[in-house]
Amino acid sequence: MRLSRHFLPVMKESPADAQIVSHKLMLRAGMIRQTAAGIYAWLPLGHRVLRKIEQIVREEQDRAGAIELLMPTMQSADLWRESGRYDAYGPEMLRIKDRHDREMLFGPTNEEMITAIFRDNARSYRDLPRILYHIQWKFRDEVRPRFGVMRGREFLMKDAYSFDLDIEGARHSYNRMFVAYLRTFRRMGLSAIPMQADTGPIGGDLSHEFIVLAPTGESEVFYHTNWEVERALDVDVDDVAALQGFVNGLTADYAATDEKRDPAREAAAGDKLKQSRGIEVGHIFYFGTKYSAAMGMTVQGPDGQPVTPQMGSYGIGVSRLMGAIIEASHDDAGIVWPDAVAPYTVGLINMRADDARCAAAADDLYAKLEAAGIETLYDDRDERGGAKFATMDLIGLPWQIVVGPKGLDKGVVELKRRATGEKVELSVEDAIAKVRG
Amino acid sequence: MRLSRHFLPVMKESPADAQIVSHKLMLRAGMIRQTAAGIYAWLPLGHRVLRKIEQIVREEQDRAGAIELLMPTMQSADLWRESGRYDAYGPEMLRIKDRHDREMLFGPTNEEMITAIFRDNARSYRDLPRILYHIQWKFRDEVRPRFGVMRGREFLMKDAYSFDLDIEGARHSYNRMFVAYLRTFRRMGLSAIPMQADTGPIGGDLSHEFIVLAPTGESEVFYHTNWEVERALDVDVDDVAALQGFVNGLTADYAATDEKRDPAREAAAGDKLKQSRGIEVGHIFYFGTKYSAAMGMTVQGPDGQPVTPQMGSYGIGVSRLMGAIIEASHDDAGIVWPDAVAPYTVGLINMRADDARCAAAADDLYAKLEAAGIETLYDDRDERGGAKFATMDLIGLPWQIVVGPKGLDKGVVELKRRATGEKVELSVEDAIAKVRG
Repeated sequence: MRLSRHFLPVMKESPADAQIVSHKLMLRAGMIRQTAAGIYAWLPLGHRVLRKIEQIVREEQDRAGAIELLMPTMQSADLWRESGRYDAYGPEMLRIKDRHDREMLFGPTNEEMITAIFRDNARSYRDLPRILYHIQWKFRDEVRPRFGVMRGREFLMKDAYSFDLDIEGARHSYNRMFVAYLRTFRRMGLSAIPMQADTGPIGGDLSHEFIVLAPTGESEVFYHTNWEVERALDVDVDDVAALQGFVNGLTADYAATDEKRDPAREAAAGDKLKQSRGIEVGHIFYFGTKYSAAMGMTVQGPDGQPVTPQMGSYGIGVSRLMGAIIEASHDDAGIVWPDAVAPYTVGLINMRADDARCAAAADDLYAKLEAAGIETLYDDRDERGGAKFATMDLIGLPWQIVVGPKGLDKGVVELKRRATGEKVELSVEDAIAKVRG
Repeated sequence: MRLSRHFLPVMKESPADAQIVSHKLMLRAGMIRQTAAGIYAWLPLGHRVLRKIEQIVREEQDRAGAIELLMPTMQSADLWRESGRYDAYGPEMLRIKDRHDREMLFGPTNEEMITAIFRDNARSYRDLPRILYHIQWKFRDEVRPRFGVMRGREFLMKDAYSFDLDIEGARHSYNRMFVAYLRTFRRMGLSAIPMQADTGPIGGDLSHEFIVLAPTGESEVFYHTNWEVERALDVDVDDVAALQGFVNGLTADYAATDEKRDPAREAAAGDKLKQSRGIEVGHIFYFGTKYSAAMGMTVQGPDGQPVTPQMGSYGIGVSRLMGAIIEASHDDAGIVWPDAVAPYTVGLINMRADDARCAAAADDLYAKLEAAGIETLYDDRDERGGAKFATMDLIGLPWQIVVGPKGLDKGVVELKRRATGEKVELSVEDAIAKVRG
């Protein structure tokens, strides 16, 4: 993509209304713009990152055996009356009347709807186990939206729902998602700790929040220092016993949110206990028959008798993850994207747009990068080199390649790794080989 | 994907509440389920097709030089007061009050929002021309939703917006989209005719609807029989004059919606004039400075003077397209997907799930198809062959491969082309080569 034809409105100064670094940087890098309190438009650069995060989430859900569908944002109030949550849910649920005065709502979560869909379409034990998921825009009418996309009102979420014949099966589904979540976050360069957590308005007996440690996080969390070491995640999730053993091994190390602290385990951790703030990026729940029983869902069991399925639900804050990644990966100059979610792999800078030789060499290199399938943002604008460097550092692409007259005299370009600042002079071919990895 | 692990609830009988064939078949094939009046959940099979349609739309927008972003669904009423449309728009706009009693709405279209975003972030003539688009769920509170996804209340739409310095530029952007639309629909196996159309609540002077002819369509349309012949679409859209000539050549043949009939041109067409019903799948508008002037958007022109940009907007009904494709491509047994949008390329049927030899051969073929990157739905269930054939015909995958004991004796499988019903016996290797194309 040529920057001269892009829509990338960067800002030199930090906007006054942004308090945390990810919010500031997303505004400055032209990734988002607020359109109403807690509601954002995703400009092209932000949208590209959002889609990459979404795709990683999707791939790991698919790999865990979950099946994608898509439920609508607008739900009928009657559906929520079936579970009893319509009156129980707080004012963060946006209640709406349509033109026929029917009560609707902009869904904050989908337990009722997926239960109704599964109830009306699954008949027998052969239809279980299943995990269904979707990636969908949701709305929660936060009383005080803040921190940009971290606590906005309209946000993108992956929510999955599991249906099993018995508690053991439900536990296995829970464990599948447990590992899928760890894999998902790690692919984005994040280290997320699963913490025993409160179940809140979803309900149920077993719940983990996945927390990325960050001083700007809204949650107060407690964990054993063993969590600071990266764990191997190579377990066969189809092997029930092996997976349970794997999850037990992980959770043997203490980690809990403020609401679920355990004084005995904290005492046992001794000076290995750490306290921090963290950002919740995922939350998983096992809640048994809470919704299936309330909404009258049964399937025919192998013995012909009706069975009320066991359920769980599993959320990932897809748009919030972008904020979490930036909180975890930035420096004074701007964002430092992990390779897997970077909007482009390479930022190509022509130092002298007014120099025909430089322009020709940069055009040629751009064509070669595109031909090699390397996503490239090409700054071909007629601007000062200093401004171009500052923009590239701000938007944080993993690699920068600079084409300038001095380098061309020597037959080289300059390749810079954004994360380390390391610069090397290379031939065009070697630079392409290097960024291709 | 193994059908034994899928969520594909097919129905033998046509649902009573569906009037048109696409609605019936989408319900029967387990693609959608209604969750409230005119609101649908997209089950896994329907969701796969939706994503394929969306991706074709995206690729042709990108190819036309448009840049993707994403605006939120919830909009502030104040934004619509700036253009004067808040009070002008009818009751199909869903008006909402948030917890602080602020007036919001679930966006039916985005002219105001994109104008505000562009106004606040574009400064100079160098920022033009641009075409920005997004693919987003919208809501229109139809008084009488009907025909399934064809006239639902919550629907997926691609809407693009162009910004140009002058009328000539705006016309070029309009022509770019004109050709992009023809290419988009053709890739989906649809023949859509651009027809002079009314501008409705969007406003403006120049407008075309893209209409797929179908007896179940809601629009009455009139066109010259020349439109029944497929046109070549190979024009360089960056060449302003060539593109204008190309569009002029196409529109020399009469085609108009009911509101825009031209008696003189109809008389000139003589017995080449045809009347039909049609489905609107796209609608493009040029409306000059209607929104940019009302909302005070200017950029600095090359001479330093402020310029009010010329705008157009360009919509495609992404979810509606699925209905249009089915209306255009089905038979008595079910859907006949065009290859480009089929949810899977191959339906693999094991005729005898209880026969170890058949199961092993089908498993092996499934593994080979997956390894070859061919999207396959594998019916490995313990069901009668007849039921499996009926399901495969209903869901309309382009190819079916049948593994049965008699074929295995001869070392062959049966390959069926869904569209023609043609069946051939082939070795496994030849069958794979054939579906790979």
